[in-house]
Amino acid sequence: MSTSEDELIEQIAASAHGRRSAGLRLGMGDDAALFAPTPRTEMVLTCDWFVEGNHFLRHRHPPESVGWKCLARALSDIAAMGARPKCFLLSLALPTNLPRGWLGKFLLGLRRASGEYRCPLVGGDTTRKREISINVTVVGEVQGGRALRRSGAKPGDRIFVSGRLGEAELGLRKLRSMRRAHRADPRMRKHLYPEPRLEIGQWLVKSNLVSAMMDISDGISNDLPRLCAAGRVGAYIEAAKLPLPASCTARAKAGDTGLALHGGDDYELLFTVPAGRAGRVPARIGKVPLSCIGEITRNRRIILRSSGRDTPLVARGWDPFRRAPR
Amino acid sequence: MSTSEDELIEQIAASAHGRRSAGLRLGMGDDAALFAPTPRTEMVLTCDWFVEGNHFLRHRHPPESVGWKCLARALSDIAAMGARPKCFLLSLALPTNLPRGWLGKFLLGLRRASGEYRCPLVGGDTTRKREISINVTVVGEVQGGRALRRSGAKPGDRIFVSGRLGEAELGLRKLRSMRRAHRADPRMRKHLYPEPRLEIGQWLVKSNLVSAMMDISDGISNDLPRLCAAGRVGAYIEAAKLPLPASCTARAKAGDTGLALHGGDDYELLFTVPAGRAGRVPARIGKVPLSCIGEITRNRRIILRSSGRDTPLVARGWDPFRRAPR
Repeated sequence: MSTSEDELIEQIAASAHGRRSAGLRLGMGDDAALFAPTPRTEMVLTCDWFVEGNHFLRHRHPPESVGWKCLARALSDIAAMGARPKCFLLSLALPTNLPRGWLGKFLLGLRRASGEYRCPLVGGDTTRKREISINVTVVGEVQGGRALRRSGAKPGDRIFVSGRLGEAELGLRKLRSMRRAHRADPRMRKHLYPEPRLEIGQWLVKSNLVSAMMDISDGISNDLPRLCAAGRVGAYIEAAKLPLPASCTARAKAGDTGLALHGGDDYELLFTVPAGRAGRVPARIGKVPLSCIGEITRNRRIILRSSGRDTPLVARGWDPFRRAPR
Repeated sequence: MSTSEDELIEQIAASAHGRRSAGLRLGMGDDAALFAPTPRTEMVLTCDWFVEGNHFLRHRHPPESVGWKCLARALSDIAAMGARPKCFLLSLALPTNLPRGWLGKFLLGLRRASGEYRCPLVGGDTTRKREISINVTVVGEVQGGRALRRSGAKPGDRIFVSGRLGEAELGLRKLRSMRRAHRADPRMRKHLYPEPRLEIGQWLVKSNLVSAMMDISDGISNDLPRLCAAGRVGAYIEAAKLPLPASCTARAKAGDTGLALHGGDDYELLFTVPAGRAGRVPARIGKVPLSCIGEITRNRRIILRSSGRDTPLVARGWDPFRRAPR
């Protein structure tokens, strides 16, 4: 890749989705982007690293997936507040020796996610680096005072998750074990092309059922303690109620429970509902199941209940500062 | 450095400035930050890389300067729109072998800039990387419809710059030439602790004098062509009118003209004013001089006029995709 920064920015801008977000006043090409917020809304701001060697492998992950996923996982934080995406900024650090074609495919995947979730690219920054580093900032909007926070879970509240847990980790294992990535393999879909639960998050905001919510990105064994710490509560979850990967067989069940507890990259929603309203949570929204997996407790411990036995749930999910890059 | 991601985030959050921005609803520790925009304003969004080896050197630049500058340079883009900063997000990729103390000093410099410019830290993301990579997103606000853009310069408009050009590059040269950085040397101040021209930007918005504005971060020889391209115009500037570094002597003048044209990291404002109003631009705002250095032209060329001779101004400023890391 031999190109100036201005040419690179032009290539990125040319790939930006034509669909303009309501309120957008000025997109790429100036010192900053401009947009007019909708009256009586609050702005939601989040940013996410997506870094070669930590979050993806250059020679394993298709560039289209890297493009899709760097935006999709930041959108998952917007979903976790129950907000609507408005626009995003892309910061891209690229090596000079990047194979021809990588950037184009990356931008294609990014453009697809941007179109699918109606979240246009409005700005960013570029630099040079030996390894590919991506940082995505998403701006969302939510009706004033209605955003769903991590804090707010109360003892007795029921704990719910969307979708199935561990499928993304299973997909990563398949990707790593293959000599050549069969990129169309549906079992890798959730790892390569995760779908932020924006529709579910927005439904839950409107329903007024939820006391606390976050997304599960580092495995429920890492993320549930964070939700509990924010509310100064504890929790127990029942192993038998975990929504395991769809491919799960009886033989694989024990291993899949571990995947469901500790697997990263699920981008499902974890939320709590007061017991009296828990019956009003539908079994699914769209095609995505919602499962009640446990209960918030007064004491601050995090417990896994399995075959009638209680054991502390140990955090073994994804933490870039503890584990070797995967 | 041996710490988990949660501990790292706690250390960063603890250093965040207590001063809360008006409208801030939810800061660090949730999936995303939340704030309520002021009615009838537009949001201004910008993000900026600050990367070891490209933008700073770990063993040369004091960590306090790295913390100050990563925010200050992003704030310069907010100044260039004439906007007020509201809050920022910090994305930090750190090596595990970072010397004890680096992070604390970095956060101290960041906190000073955050306090000085009333721009609180509200969120971010962390990951692990062999080299320090920083990405800062700043959100600003400006009265609806009043932001100053790059486009809009018309033939005959006078070209102005704030401050002095080339001082930051001069400071970088001194820093590199010293065996041990004398960090208190005032000649390095502009390189280590640049001051975004927020006050000037906001004054210019209110004055209604300006037809186009941007900040100078890559040297005027790189940035003036960008302003001209946005307005489909050309420009000439007069070498004799360039505001050279304060330390400039007659002997050094020729070299300093090169510094002023091509030196990076100045973070001054470049703006154009219709000829009839140019007399209303004050000689200085606060302690910062404003200098008229040339004129916008109809033909699309960028010309340097020196001792009565016109030559094309060649872009030799900072471009991370052309130059070796400095």
